[in-house]
Amino acid sequence: MLDMSRGKPSAQQLALANDMLTILGPNDCVTENLTDARNYGGLDGIMEMKRIFGQMLNTPAESVVVGDNSSLTMMYHMIAACMFDGDEAWAKQGERVKFLCPAPGYDRHFAICQKFGIEMLPVPLNDDGPDMDIVEQIISRDAKIKGMWCVPVYSNPTGIVYSDEVCGRIAALQPAARDFRLFWDNAYCVHNFAEDRPQPFDILRLATNPDMPVLFTSFSKISFAGAAVAALAASEANRSKYLNHIKIMTVGCDKLNQLRHARYFNNLDGVLNHMQKMAAIVRPKFEATLDILSGLEDIADWTRPKGGYFISFNAKPGLAVKIVAECKRQGVIMTEAGATFPYGNDPLDKNIRIAPTYPSLDELTQAMKIFSRVARQESQKIVTRGLCT
Amino acid sequence: MLDMSRGKPSAQQLALANDMLTILGPNDCVTENLTDARNYGGLDGIMEMKRIFGQMLNTPAESVVVGDNSSLTMMYHMIAACMFDGDEAWAKQGERVKFLCPAPGYDRHFAICQKFGIEMLPVPLNDDGPDMDIVEQIISRDAKIKGMWCVPVYSNPTGIVYSDEVCGRIAALQPAARDFRLFWDNAYCVHNFAEDRPQPFDILRLATNPDMPVLFTSFSKISFAGAAVAALAASEANRSKYLNHIKIMTVGCDKLNQLRHARYFNNLDGVLNHMQKMAAIVRPKFEATLDILSGLEDIADWTRPKGGYFISFNAKPGLAVKIVAECKRQGVIMTEAGATFPYGNDPLDKNIRIAPTYPSLDELTQAMKIFSRVARQESQKIVTRGLCT
Repeated sequence: MLDMSRGKPSAQQLALANDMLTILGPNDCVTENLTDARNYGGLDGIMEMKRIFGQMLNTPAESVVVGDNSSLTMMYHMIAACMFDGDEAWAKQGERVKFLCPAPGYDRHFAICQKFGIEMLPVPLNDDGPDMDIVEQIISRDAKIKGMWCVPVYSNPTGIVYSDEVCGRIAALQPAARDFRLFWDNAYCVHNFAEDRPQPFDILRLATNPDMPVLFTSFSKISFAGAAVAALAASEANRSKYLNHIKIMTVGCDKLNQLRHARYFNNLDGVLNHMQKMAAIVRPKFEATLDILSGLEDIADWTRPKGGYFISFNAKPGLAVKIVAECKRQGVIMTEAGATFPYGNDPLDKNIRIAPTYPSLDELTQAMKIFSRVARQESQKIVTRGLCT
Repeated sequence: MLDMSRGKPSAQQLALANDMLTILGPNDCVTENLTDARNYGGLDGIMEMKRIFGQMLNTPAESVVVGDNSSLTMMYHMIAACMFDGDEAWAKQGERVKFLCPAPGYDRHFAICQKFGIEMLPVPLNDDGPDMDIVEQIISRDAKIKGMWCVPVYSNPTGIVYSDEVCGRIAALQPAARDFRLFWDNAYCVHNFAEDRPQPFDILRLATNPDMPVLFTSFSKISFAGAAVAALAASEANRSKYLNHIKIMTVGCDKLNQLRHARYFNNLDGVLNHMQKMAAIVRPKFEATLDILSGLEDIADWTRPKGGYFISFNAKPGLAVKIVAECKRQGVIMTEAGATFPYGNDPLDKNIRIAPTYPSLDELTQAMKIFSRVARQESQKIVTRGLCT
């Protein structure tokens, strides 16, 4: 089976950070603030990592809270804190909470909403970001809309980058809900592979309401996917909300792994240097994928990202489920059709997420040829069915 | 300030595991099940660590789920899963959920209950475990009692070990609530410093209802307090419940840190060898503390543990808050009086938790002399007040 279902780094990508494994020796476990990183404590993380995350996100180090392995966990806990904590908790306000979900989007974001019973309202995601005419209109009317998911740089799965104009309109949003929050998942903020890195929009400073944006990012696709360090950046009020929530379940995150990352990457330049080596591995896989897809221009369209982890493929309406099922039968596992939409429901059944990074170039080529042939055959069947009726 | 408020290991204890920092090299990141520990996945942990935890807890490796840094986090999520997930969730059953809390006990257990609005019913903790006459009586009557906290070995803070008879009665409990669960926190299962290690009671096999016990432990006070590995052991139903809950918030725990622990400790013998070195550091601190306390026999009593992290000190009723406050004034921070009881409410205001491990032997001696003098003075004041009235 060729598994192209998840955005996993390849072994070659992971190996780029191998020197990090042994970088932290016994005489190097004290942070610049004189904390012994081996011991308990430090709920908000070490300053060395706050500084690096601040540079990556283009936001002050003081606004950063460093977490463990997964930014997804931090998103989950931030939403749990908003749902349940304090007198003004979302869950205590009576009616059901709603989130705007630009779609196609990231299935794990949607799964968190489903877990908390948050109603998801899909919003079209254009080439420059969410359709802001729609967003502005519905957000200003409905006080039950408490949040919106955004992946502003190399969006999952379309790979688009929000334009400065769209970011500006998001920053200026006037939601009916005073406690509306923007979940700004900048997972791919340094993951360019084909051009200059887009400068992250300074949403925390530029938002009309500084308590609106909550930024997230992580090293999951920079160092080791399963053993990285994640972060959140937000206003003091939001940081307190988050920390008060997690302090019940932990005495602090793994500061040794934070220090390991700090020693290895040092600063933004260290991260960007590393990501250039990463680009040299990832770029050829995207190019090979796009090259094979290019024969399908008469029956489908797809995105041509300059960074991130995915290509978003649109077949003719009604074909995504069929193509994914037939690929599976032929030994190629794609992300489940529909996964890129809230409730797994792609209204036109046309979107398929392609994740080119994990397989070797050979396997990828093999898998994409099968995918391409299947896409062609399924489209053909429509024509045939069309002719017969 | 001399801080004796928390059960933190000293730098000397942490240094025992220093070789673990660099034990995992680039060519050693693949687990025995051929998983690349650097990449995503493996929600339930690696087999190497399941096996070690199984040996420590005296339970099959297959029943173990390995987590990240903190067993507290795993307890929190297990309770969250019971509270909210599925049709039979505790929170959906109408009335308020209750937990039995043997007291004095662990403040962070109680904080989790408070967070979830679980009503805590204190139960006396005797020298051989919870008062089982009381436990059996109330548990068989009240179907809203859904859980009980247990620290069966070197209990926090009294340091007592549950007797086999008490463990047997716990295993045979017939709670009115079919979905009653035992939160069996075996945090100190290998932390003996003065005699042979008590063999962990095989609660998972011996419980009348195999879905009743959920076991927890961690390496927090074995390797690095802030960068350890935790585990849960339970029936298949409970493991599924836990994993289904956490799969929404994470793709998997830090497998590199799991592998680091597995390579360093190898098996139970490796752990026990390590804990003998630990005992050589910890034992003198307990001895020094008990030595200084010995002058107070006319005005107080206290426990004399053979393992664990704490000594439980009982002053004359009404004095705990006063002693802790006066110690603080004199530069010694003790655990907040009352913290060892649900809602921070020690009904007799007499219990104080002493944590001897973190300070150096000199600092500890200094702090305990101040504590001892303050305890003496505050007791004297009662006598004086008594004489004046």
